[in-house]
Amino acid sequence: MNVQKKKRGELIVLSGPSGVGKSTVIAELLSERSDIHFSVSFTTRSPRVGEADGVNYNFVTREEFERMIAGDELLEYAEYVGNYYGTSLKVIQEKLDKGIDVLLDIEVQGAAKVRQKCPEAVFIFIMPPSFEELSRRLHRRNTDSEEVIADRLTKAQQECRQIPQYDYLVVNDTVTAAAHEIIAILTAEGCRVKNRTHLIEGV
Amino acid sequence: MNVQKKKRGELIVLSGPSGVGKSTVIAELLSERSDIHFSVSFTTRSPRVGEADGVNYNFVTREEFERMIAGDELLEYAEYVGNYYGTSLKVIQEKLDKGIDVLLDIEVQGAAKVRQKCPEAVFIFIMPPSFEELSRRLHRRNTDSEEVIADRLTKAQQECRQIPQYDYLVVNDTVTAAAHEIIAILTAEGCRVKNRTHLIEGV
Repeated sequence: MNVQKKKRGELIVLSGPSGVGKSTVIAELLSERSDIHFSVSFTTRSPRVGEADGVNYNFVTREEFERMIAGDELLEYAEYVGNYYGTSLKVIQEKLDKGIDVLLDIEVQGAAKVRQKCPEAVFIFIMPPSFEELSRRLHRRNTDSEEVIADRLTKAQQECRQIPQYDYLVVNDTVTAAAHEIIAILTAEGCRVKNRTHLIEGV
Repeated sequence: MNVQKKKRGELIVLSGPSGVGKSTVIAELLSERSDIHFSVSFTTRSPRVGEADGVNYNFVTREEFERMIAGDELLEYAEYVGNYYGTSLKVIQEKLDKGIDVLLDIEVQGAAKVRQKCPEAVFIFIMPPSFEELSRRLHRRNTDSEEVIADRLTKAQQECRQIPQYDYLVVNDTVTAAAHEIIAILTAEGCRVKNRTHLIEGV
């Protein structure tokens, strides 16, 4: 009975409606838990102004993406407005095998696919304190028209119906509190008996 | 979709071998989470030096304890090294109904009984970093003979075999780290979707 490091990393899947403040919460989380690997998605769409390859997305050609599909290298992928978006299984497996926790920021449909392939992953949904507040945040962002905001709010309500499929629900009232709850969830998951069997092998 | 307080308190069951340092961890935990009600067990054993009635245990006679058994007043009870130990069901229910989390410090047999009656409770096992360290801690306590210590170590090994029945495993390497992990577990449990259904009722 000797205490060892956890053998395998954990896959953490984070979903939440557009405008809920996920990116800010993730930035706060990663600043406190720099040992977590944030999985950057692959896409065939062109980089927008200010977007960097390997940071916002891994920008690849359609041919490269289809080679990844053919090689079964993707955990999940989808085609949206003529472009592919997907998550590399290979990169994630490598990190997990090294004992590194991996964080995925993924919408509910992608999360559903991950759940089928990796039911042992930890699924966290980030919710706004209210739809009124979500509407305020989308307006404050000042990037979308009224029509697009109305679409996003409808989509947010649909996404919230998937909450029962998730393990944890975090309300993004303040970024600090939300990040604190996610950090606590990751600590707790690391303490689960099923993730610490290596500690009791000698008993 | 409005954020409300959790409706019902959670029952937290903490087990661990004698000498693991549970009392110290619990004291640290309660100093940080004073909202938790620590359920004081009833016992027929004699108080040790420094132990106070109603604080460490409710010390009762064998006759009083057997009256509680007959009156079905106990969530669980067990006889251990010649003495009764038990938990009052009534006090716990009152607290949980008020939305207060209740912490039970209970050995593995008692925990197994609570698991049957309250499967929704959170079960945490506290383990020493090694049996050598547990032996050192039991000697340092300076309350038991070599024979009693040997018995406790044998019993500890038997208890550790029940770890797979628990939800979480915390290694008491340092008191601060162990208390921190338990606090994280309680925060995470509060974030579980099943404990936050009241937040999504309106969606």
